Amino acid sequence: MAKSAGIVLIGNEILSGKIHDANAAYLCRELRALGVEVRKMSVIPDELEAIRQEVAQFAAAYDYVFTSGGVGPTHDDVTIVGVSRAMGVAVVREPHLVRLLEGFYPSNLNAARLKMAEVPEGAELLAGDSLTFPVIVIRNVYVLPGVPEIFRQKFEAIRERFREQPFHLRSVFVRIGEGTLADFLNDLLTAYPRLLVGSYPEFRHPDYKVKVTLECKDPEYVDQALTALLRRLPKDAVVRIE
Amino acid sequence: MAKSAGIVLIGNEILSGKIHDANAAYLCRELRALGVEVRKMSVIPDELEAIRQEVAQFAAAYDYVFTSGGVGPTHDDVTIVGVSRAMGVAVVREPHLVRLLEGFYPSNLNAARLKMAEVPEGAELLAGDSLTFPVIVIRNVYVLPGVPEIFRQKFEAIRERFREQPFHLRSVFVRIGEGTLADFLNDLLTAYPRLLVGSYPEFRHPDYKVKVTLECKDPEYVDQALTALLRRLPKDAVVRIE
Repeated sequence: MAKSAGIVLIGNEILSGKIHDANAAYLCRELRALGVEVRKMSVIPDELEAIRQEVAQFAAAYDYVFTSGGVGPTHDDVTIVGVSRAMGVAVVREPHLVRLLEGFYPSNLNAARLKMAEVPEGAELLAGDSLTFPVIVIRNVYVLPGVPEIFRQKFEAIRERFREQPFHLRSVFVRIGEGTLADFLNDLLTAYPRLLVGSYPEFRHPDYKVKVTLECKDPEYVDQALTALLRRLPKDAVVRIE
Repeated sequence: MAKSAGIVLIGNEILSGKIHDANAAYLCRELRALGVEVRKMSVIPDELEAIRQEVAQFAAAYDYVFTSGGVGPTHDDVTIVGVSRAMGVAVVREPHLVRLLEGFYPSNLNAARLKMAEVPEGAELLAGDSLTFPVIVIRNVYVLPGVPEIFRQKFEAIRERFREQPFHLRSVFVRIGEGTLADFLNDLLTAYPRLLVGSYPEFRHPDYKVKVTLECKDPEYVDQALTALLRRLPKDAVVRIE
């Protein structure tokens, strides 16, 4: 079984259509490439109770949880408190982070900025030697910032800890529509129940109508299924295989 | 109170990073412009139980629910069954949709294609005169397809039914950072509790450091709050107002 992950984006700005999130799509791609299966993603407002509830559910349901957003110094940054409540721990000021902030703001470390030294009690700090500011993790919940550049920097600094057996993917581009294809795919899934099959219609592509994806962590299983599918499909249906 | 909405995207292809969803961002923007507040968005796999659970929760929590994806003819298209279970109704074949499909596929309306005539029992069909295929709605749940072009066509055909009093938005671009800004915004929220305040740091813009947004359905309230904020901020802090 692949390890599972859930992603919680915390951001009124996404829900109100002001900002188009880029972090979730990036993280879905990265985790997939690492062999991790993202099972759910959600976007919730910057509200304590919403964060508490969502993070608690995700932390119980998935191997890894990633949050994005709500970790700055302003009034609407309540992720640390929300995550702490979700995990049933207090919010504490972390001495190492205080020292870091004292270095960044030697003359103007006010209360708002000091908020960024707060962590859920029992949290670990990761990748402190390669990052300006470490990643905060409490049990299986990784707290990441919303700003895309920093989100990526932080994930890249910790990504190797998530690597496992990769998924193997083959794509078959066909010039028959989904309505005709459906029976072939159902038969294929009956014969290869462990296969993950996707079918993606493309209405404006001149060459093909549907991209079919076959996936599994076992490369031989994917290859056998691919051979079986190609044997079943009408001869002129296949445009190309990737 | 603004009407609330929730968006459920059904799609393994988004979770596995194969496709970058465009429907949710589009819908968040459109609904906001119509005066509707999107309270939550989630992406779940093409799985019956996941769909049932999520749609049931959303339908109980929000005025409007929009689903995207999982409505085609293939094995993984289980949204109609999932939504039906969420609403506690049977799946039925809708005679009007059968006639439409007979028109589209006069000689090859197979079982897979006929699946697209299935709806939750009690569903209404909307915008049938302007669309090739109508929008399916069951109580407060609008079932939309995942293909972005068709998703938009369908939403545009029904959008006016969601229109209400708009949000009024003013944006203030400042050259002070969030750490300095935080106290001003906290004071502002104490004086104007009905205000929705956003603060969006921009690390690479040459002109400003943070974009502050003030929002409310009452335009006078926003203007009063804007005046109050400008009075409080240091004189050279403001770059521009939009």
